[in-house]
Amino acid sequence: MSFACPVSDQRLVLNHVVRVSELAKSNRFAEATPETVDALLEAAAEFAEGELAPLNEIGDRTASRWSDGMVTTPPGFREAYSKFVEGGWMGLSGPVEAGGQGLPNSLSAAMMEDFNAANVAFALCPMLGLGAVEAIEAHGSEELKRQYLPRIVSGEWTATMNLTESQAGSDVGALKSRATPTGDGSWRITGTKIFITYGEHDFTDNIIHLVLARTPGAPDGTKGISLFLVPKILPDGESNDLHCVSIEHKMGIHASPTCVMGYGENGGATGWLVGEELGGMRAMFTMMNHARLNVGLQGVGLAERATQRAVAYALERKQGQRSGLPIRIADHPDVRRMLVRMRALTMAARALAYYAFGQLDRDILGDREAGLRADVLTPLVKAWCTDVGCEVASLGIQVHGGMGFIEETGAAQHLRDARIAPIYEGTNGIQAADFVQRKIGLDGGGAFDALMADIRAESLHEELIALADEVEILVATARNAEPGDRLVASYPLMTMAAVLTAGWLIERLGRAIDAGEADAGNAGRSAAVAYFLSIVVPEALGLGAGAAATTELLYRAPAEELA
Amino acid sequence: MSFACPVSDQRLVLNHVVRVSELAKSNRFAEATPETVDALLEAAAEFAEGELAPLNEIGDRTASRWSDGMVTTPPGFREAYSKFVEGGWMGLSGPVEAGGQGLPNSLSAAMMEDFNAANVAFALCPMLGLGAVEAIEAHGSEELKRQYLPRIVSGEWTATMNLTESQAGSDVGALKSRATPTGDGSWRITGTKIFITYGEHDFTDNIIHLVLARTPGAPDGTKGISLFLVPKILPDGESNDLHCVSIEHKMGIHASPTCVMGYGENGGATGWLVGEELGGMRAMFTMMNHARLNVGLQGVGLAERATQRAVAYALERKQGQRSGLPIRIADHPDVRRMLVRMRALTMAARALAYYAFGQLDRDILGDREAGLRADVLTPLVKAWCTDVGCEVASLGIQVHGGMGFIEETGAAQHLRDARIAPIYEGTNGIQAADFVQRKIGLDGGGAFDALMADIRAESLHEELIALADEVEILVATARNAEPGDRLVASYPLMTMAAVLTAGWLIERLGRAIDAGEADAGNAGRSAAVAYFLSIVVPEALGLGAGAAATTELLYRAPAEELA
Repeated sequence: MSFACPVSDQRLVLNHVVRVSELAKSNRFAEATPETVDALLEAAAEFAEGELAPLNEIGDRTASRWSDGMVTTPPGFREAYSKFVEGGWMGLSGPVEAGGQGLPNSLSAAMMEDFNAANVAFALCPMLGLGAVEAIEAHGSEELKRQYLPRIVSGEWTATMNLTESQAGSDVGALKSRATPTGDGSWRITGTKIFITYGEHDFTDNIIHLVLARTPGAPDGTKGISLFLVPKILPDGESNDLHCVSIEHKMGIHASPTCVMGYGENGGATGWLVGEELGGMRAMFTMMNHARLNVGLQGVGLAERATQRAVAYALERKQGQRSGLPIRIADHPDVRRMLVRMRALTMAARALAYYAFGQLDRDILGDREAGLRADVLTPLVKAWCTDVGCEVASLGIQVHGGMGFIEETGAAQHLRDARIAPIYEGTNGIQAADFVQRKIGLDGGGAFDALMADIRAESLHEELIALADEVEILVATARNAEPGDRLVASYPLMTMAAVLTAGWLIERLGRAIDAGEADAGNAGRSAAVAYFLSIVVPEALGLGAGAAATTELLYRAPAEELA
Repeated sequence: MSFACPVSDQRLVLNHVVRVSELAKSNRFAEATPETVDALLEAAAEFAEGELAPLNEIGDRTASRWSDGMVTTPPGFREAYSKFVEGGWMGLSGPVEAGGQGLPNSLSAAMMEDFNAANVAFALCPMLGLGAVEAIEAHGSEELKRQYLPRIVSGEWTATMNLTESQAGSDVGALKSRATPTGDGSWRITGTKIFITYGEHDFTDNIIHLVLARTPGAPDGTKGISLFLVPKILPDGESNDLHCVSIEHKMGIHASPTCVMGYGENGGATGWLVGEELGGMRAMFTMMNHARLNVGLQGVGLAERATQRAVAYALERKQGQRSGLPIRIADHPDVRRMLVRMRALTMAARALAYYAFGQLDRDILGDREAGLRADVLTPLVKAWCTDVGCEVASLGIQVHGGMGFIEETGAAQHLRDARIAPIYEGTNGIQAADFVQRKIGLDGGGAFDALMADIRAESLHEELIALADEVEILVATARNAEPGDRLVASYPLMTMAAVLTAGWLIERLGRAIDAGEADAGNAGRSAAVAYFLSIVVPEALGLGAGAAATTELLYRAPAEELA
């Protein structure tokens, strides 16, 4: 079925949750006028709907194929990537000095949501590029910036993140890839990396790999890691000593090649340091934090796509009769419940994700508190929005009944595609750990407390305030808890905090809808807001017992006895 | 990885939840001695582990293939089916007069859990046969019983359920297949059926189709439906006028051929009435209720398999260090949380499902109250156990991290296989409707109230009693509500009732474990019981707002506005 980007919804969130007009008052983001925002949303929608969405199912069916070190993407993907480059989409929020447009990250978020919704397996390629741009811009030498940034920002070349090794997943500090200096400023990189998204493909002539490796004498663990830029094709036009060993056979995102990359089988791949030696983790987190928010947008995009597909089917499909007339299943009460729930979760996840990007934009303008808030929200966006993506995609299957399980229907692909998002760029468990171990204590706890104060100052909703009370108590407990107790309770606490924050933002959105000009979709939006506040928020309160769990409960038995 | 059936857990549930020893006091089930139960559990485990489990991944990868009306099952499946027949597995709980062993349904449930866990795509074939046996035994003529029952009970022939047509899914009354009498007692059947599990295959020479169709002059809707037995091969050895038109390409259960079946393209397939003309719905529900409980067992089996796989991986995989020693991820707090949760949900779902089968057994012994309780529990078992299957399988992927998304790991298959169970044999939404529209009012409400009274008389757990209080209030409201309000709130209410009932049974199991003889796995079981009661039960309380939702909330906007 056809896909239409939710432009009106996006505009509402940008206006009332992100408040782009405030950003546009700055010199830095002066171009983000209402006209530009509108034009951008329309153009991104046109590209997503016209070029990317039609390739989504063929990408799933055909998948990227590996042969002799080369990767062939599915039919149409290469051409779509060319149009993506021609459209200048890669540089939307990229640095002006590298040829980007320097628009707010929150606008880039809307674009990425659209591209994710249309074709998440395609959108992964630019997504990683955005993180690489951030890392090179923040940490790279002037020479590296000059040589590489403009071509990544334009999309002429793509970029990757090479972190994981088979023994080093969540524990990135266990990686073993090595870098040795050559003496001329370059390094020789050796090692094998796994799970490298778009590590090889046929979109572009060159691929710029950002690779974590250890330098000679580096300490163990994360402190001993450095980041290197390792191009597939060297500046002199020669091929670098690296290749794609194989690609994975995955549950979803079939069009996105997930590569095993081998570096230095013939003496060492040539690379250059990005940032300081041993400063790899810092540079990695620059990439990673951006990528984490963008993964949250995958959840939003897939939720939107699944919702549209389910609503369209439920309006079309008839089962049963009332007064002798066939009933659309959308009018069956439990199907209606599922549709409203899908819509409510999608809207709330969008509000939360865009809001976080908006805080990044404010950080760029010098608002340090906004920067801290973006830090607090990053794990919530990554984890909760991707959980929402899976739940909504699964509900989408359910709305279709038996047809939902048939691959040709398309609903199943959304769940298969969505299921990776809670895993990569730091599993949602890692996000939960980040939330309770770092984020609730950030700035002496002030960053989180300021968020709570803002919620309390604005929310008028009884259930939401009850949730705020509960979260506040649980966070106070977590701050004083032993690390083990804090961690066993972390996931439900993170979910509660995410629902609370999303609820606050969607309540704001609801007021704006009610106060604003009439729009064809406002009744649906209001219904979704009401459902979220009165049904989803109380569900989160039910997570309180889990968010107060202790190691005493969870470690009663040796793990061996759990199977 | 290897799979081991949870024999000790099954024995505990059979002894303390089903209380098989009480059944064995009857003449009818006198053979269900502790020795027989043990021997059966061991033998079923041996067959599931040795013959079925090794074919699970190959079945997923190869899938059943259609060519020119014939279906070829994956390598090894045909041979496994022969061994299944040789082992006499099909007749375990089948009628003695047809060559079955007449053992309790609750023992057959343990066998089916094992077979589902080992290879759900294989187990679907006998599962449908069990329902057909019930229907033919209850409603078929002596002649049909004589001709068909022994061969279905032995497994020499398989049987199918033909309900769905493309326009008639949940609304089975909309079906259009026709049956016209020939005058010699047989009927000519014409029509096209979809989603027919094992409608065609290469296991056996004959396949016995139970087909719903309309007779001449029959009224519209479900009242006009009759059930027919339509064999692939007629008693005279001729092929009947029916064929497999195509098979579906599905998200999971790839080895199970989901067939489009065409009847009567050359004048009409020959069939015989099962039960009265226009009595099709009654006969169908005989099949269907049995199948619904068995689908619940698919959730249990897949949850068990996913849990075992996740625990094994989490014990093996190491990430991070403590005091210089590598840590197994099973010892990471959030992974531990997931493992305990998986185990707790699986145990609780097993207890609930087996208990319901035990009530069927008591019904057979003449305990009408037990029969009513089985009726009340059927939607809870079907819906909640299959939801548990999906949740646990999804957690299983998450425990594996990136490897969980790689198909070769095997974790993804469990979710893909599990995702159909909330859909077929009546979607879980249909189960919720059945629960609030029929089951809470059954026997004037007495059947549900008796369950509540039993829970209150036995449970000592504060949170569980709080949930019982809440369910009781919500059920009272639902009984008096308008149909629309009752239905929009039905799904969360059903989930709350299922968690309550499962919590009651698992609390009982916990007491038995604590009081019983030492067993290597008891610490793990106790930990799972504690988690369920103190974490999962309060979560269910959080569903209260949804279970009190009204059409006023859910129908605020036209469905068109939800996308």
